[in-house]
Amino acid sequence: MIDTRYNESEIKQLEYYLEQRDFKSLIAALREEHEVDVADFMEILPDDKTAFVFRMLPKEMSADVFANLEPETQQRVVESFSDAETTSMLNDLFIDDAVDFIEEMPANMVNRLLRLTPPEKRKIINRYLQYPEDSAGSIMTSEYTRLKKDMTVADAIAHLREFGEDRETIYTCYVTDDFRILEGVISVRSLLLSNDAEVISDIMQKEIIFATTDMDQEEVVQKMHRYDLLSLPVVDRENRLVGIVTVDDAVDIIQEEATEDFEKMAAMSPSERPYLKTPAWILGRKRIVWLLFLMLSGMLNGLILQSNEAAFIAYPLLVSFIPMLTDTGGNVGSQTSTLMIRGMTLGEIKFSDIFKVIRKETATSLMMGLILAGINFLRVFLLDGSLIAAIILSLSMMVTVFIAAFIGGVLPLVASKLKVDPAIMAAPLITTIVDAISLFIYFGIARALLLI
Amino acid sequence: MIDTRYNESEIKQLEYYLEQRDFKSLIAALREEHEVDVADFMEILPDDKTAFVFRMLPKEMSADVFANLEPETQQRVVESFSDAETTSMLNDLFIDDAVDFIEEMPANMVNRLLRLTPPEKRKIINRYLQYPEDSAGSIMTSEYTRLKKDMTVADAIAHLREFGEDRETIYTCYVTDDFRILEGVISVRSLLLSNDAEVISDIMQKEIIFATTDMDQEEVVQKMHRYDLLSLPVVDRENRLVGIVTVDDAVDIIQEEATEDFEKMAAMSPSERPYLKTPAWILGRKRIVWLLFLMLSGMLNGLILQSNEAAFIAYPLLVSFIPMLTDTGGNVGSQTSTLMIRGMTLGEIKFSDIFKVIRKETATSLMMGLILAGINFLRVFLLDGSLIAAIILSLSMMVTVFIAAFIGGVLPLVASKLKVDPAIMAAPLITTIVDAISLFIYFGIARALLLI
Repeated sequence: MIDTRYNESEIKQLEYYLEQRDFKSLIAALREEHEVDVADFMEILPDDKTAFVFRMLPKEMSADVFANLEPETQQRVVESFSDAETTSMLNDLFIDDAVDFIEEMPANMVNRLLRLTPPEKRKIINRYLQYPEDSAGSIMTSEYTRLKKDMTVADAIAHLREFGEDRETIYTCYVTDDFRILEGVISVRSLLLSNDAEVISDIMQKEIIFATTDMDQEEVVQKMHRYDLLSLPVVDRENRLVGIVTVDDAVDIIQEEATEDFEKMAAMSPSERPYLKTPAWILGRKRIVWLLFLMLSGMLNGLILQSNEAAFIAYPLLVSFIPMLTDTGGNVGSQTSTLMIRGMTLGEIKFSDIFKVIRKETATSLMMGLILAGINFLRVFLLDGSLIAAIILSLSMMVTVFIAAFIGGVLPLVASKLKVDPAIMAAPLITTIVDAISLFIYFGIARALLLI
Repeated sequence: MIDTRYNESEIKQLEYYLEQRDFKSLIAALREEHEVDVADFMEILPDDKTAFVFRMLPKEMSADVFANLEPETQQRVVESFSDAETTSMLNDLFIDDAVDFIEEMPANMVNRLLRLTPPEKRKIINRYLQYPEDSAGSIMTSEYTRLKKDMTVADAIAHLREFGEDRETIYTCYVTDDFRILEGVISVRSLLLSNDAEVISDIMQKEIIFATTDMDQEEVVQKMHRYDLLSLPVVDRENRLVGIVTVDDAVDIIQEEATEDFEKMAAMSPSERPYLKTPAWILGRKRIVWLLFLMLSGMLNGLILQSNEAAFIAYPLLVSFIPMLTDTGGNVGSQTSTLMIRGMTLGEIKFSDIFKVIRKETATSLMMGLILAGINFLRVFLLDGSLIAAIILSLSMMVTVFIAAFIGGVLPLVASKLKVDPAIMAAPLITTIVDAISLFIYFGIARALLLI
């Protein structure tokens, strides 16, 4: 038993063969690696070696390796291709991989690629390219297994054994009529466990879980996850089967969407490239926009402070409580907004739950506010010896925690209702909003009680 | 074609039948629903109705519905069971579902459950219960298809058709010797596409991607995701096949781990329960601990401010820049730490990349620092008319952004090296650390330049 996990020493070996120009050993070693690992190896090669190494791959490996390369590397490889080689590669790629690849290429190259695609495949690819980004249509593949309902189980198995080669997944078969209208679903498992003489229409499942081409990919993966499906059929407006989404692509999307949410929630514009492969200036660009926006809001808080100079000159102790108060408010707000955003992603929380959320956050925040305010009251009263400061701080704390929880709960739900991505309403923005509100409350209470 | 998606009107219909005590219609309607949806319906029933409705389910549905219930609901159902009913349920559950269920039950109930489990299954369950939490052993199932290497393809297909019924997934078959040592893997797809006369040992894949029982579940799902696997074999120290992890469980784990990371990164102790099903006091408990800890650090910042009272009484304008400076530092730090934590989860960043990370963050932060400092310099110089304040603020901004990026990049990597969960080093903690450092820098620079 050999563990084929990607490991550093194997990669070093490949690099060594290449350096020594021992191409025979290199070719032999590449043949032993998994396609995913070969793609990773190609990513760390110097640019001028990529196409060269790619040509060494055995024919049956090359399409799978190609599909796993980063777009920049794919471009470099294809630029070195003759027309005939390009046509053959496009022919070998699964439809969804071909579409992913073409979508990432610059416009002038897309024309060449489409021209070199075999006509039948080009028609399908063109249709795919028209589906909106992140829709079921844009992530599906057209390589699925189609059966007729009057086939017997023996016919169906024979059909699979004859035509299964090109299908991305054969484990769920789709039954359609002559107009491709989806009529039923049957798993290879059910086929195998049925008697040869049974007829498909008697054993197929007629209640079908499906997606439409324009359905958002997040909804697609939620469905597949909910019902533990290996593939999900995609139909057009006339209920004609046009493609399927497979579980491996669904997992990719789950990971991508989670990464996007993480990035948005940490005040970054999301990008698809792995961190180490992103140049510093692109990293900077995706981070600076939100920093600037939040800095502007931070300035607003500066203005609130400036307009309260009189209060803290008269009573400098007030200043020292500001970071703790605003930080706590921000933390409560980001806790709640994170729970909301994640709950919505998983389909557990909907806009219609808003009153349940408000009730739950009210109870939770009053409880937490009491504890936090109590501790602060005791600390300020006992350590700083000021009853009035203790009252100001603990009152502000109660109100801030309550408002932070309320805003953190309501804003993401309202955003989703307005079709704005709720992840925008995450920690950084909520923190800035809560900061301003807590400063208002704090100085409002302070000036009222101190009669400034 | 019927869309069987869970929808509100169908649920209302079920509730109506139950209210009207129209059990015949209820039973018929339940039979039409997907098991996952029936489980969801049972969750919203009043406690005293759960067991009652559960008994109405057709026998072939009940194990699947049961596996999808929340632990509290499972307990309520089982408490209403006779011994014979419990044994039958335990027998019908897949091993991994049975283990998940038993793990969540209170200790006194576990004994009864194990006693009622058929002896052979009990042995397996007992072994599973001993694997460490979140290990490959604890998430695998023992229902896989095993072939012998001297079988022909025709034998293998016949074997599948005869014995496939109880297997959780039949699409990947595992080839072992008489001592259960794993020797090869073959997909049902390869079987179907091969000639009947071929022998398994000639067509099976001998390079196997596998997990060991003690491997962390995060590593397991990373492997499955990397190589797009529908199932992954799990072996013990003697390379004996003991179970498989299936892709649907891998997806559950990906979602759970992402949710945990989101919660940790928003300063909460993670929990597995959906938000709306968690009582307020449990929500409060999982949130208050971190709030208290971060409040303590916030107090530290208060002390830094108190010790600089002289500076801001002499120069009150300084106070108004504090929120913007600390917020920006916190935002930069949480951006970087989020990129690190997510990159490590996806296996894209390792501890050995630390110098690459430092280089990249230095370049990125200098660039962002220059822009942010430049804008602040101009604003303060032009609007507040103070050159010295402009210099203090822009210098502090440069240094803060650089240090925030550095800390945000290094701390999560160091944490992972020390086997501490890097998600702990996320936004809230980094923010608090960066807050303190930026205040130090700010007042250090201010006092040096203002000669206070």
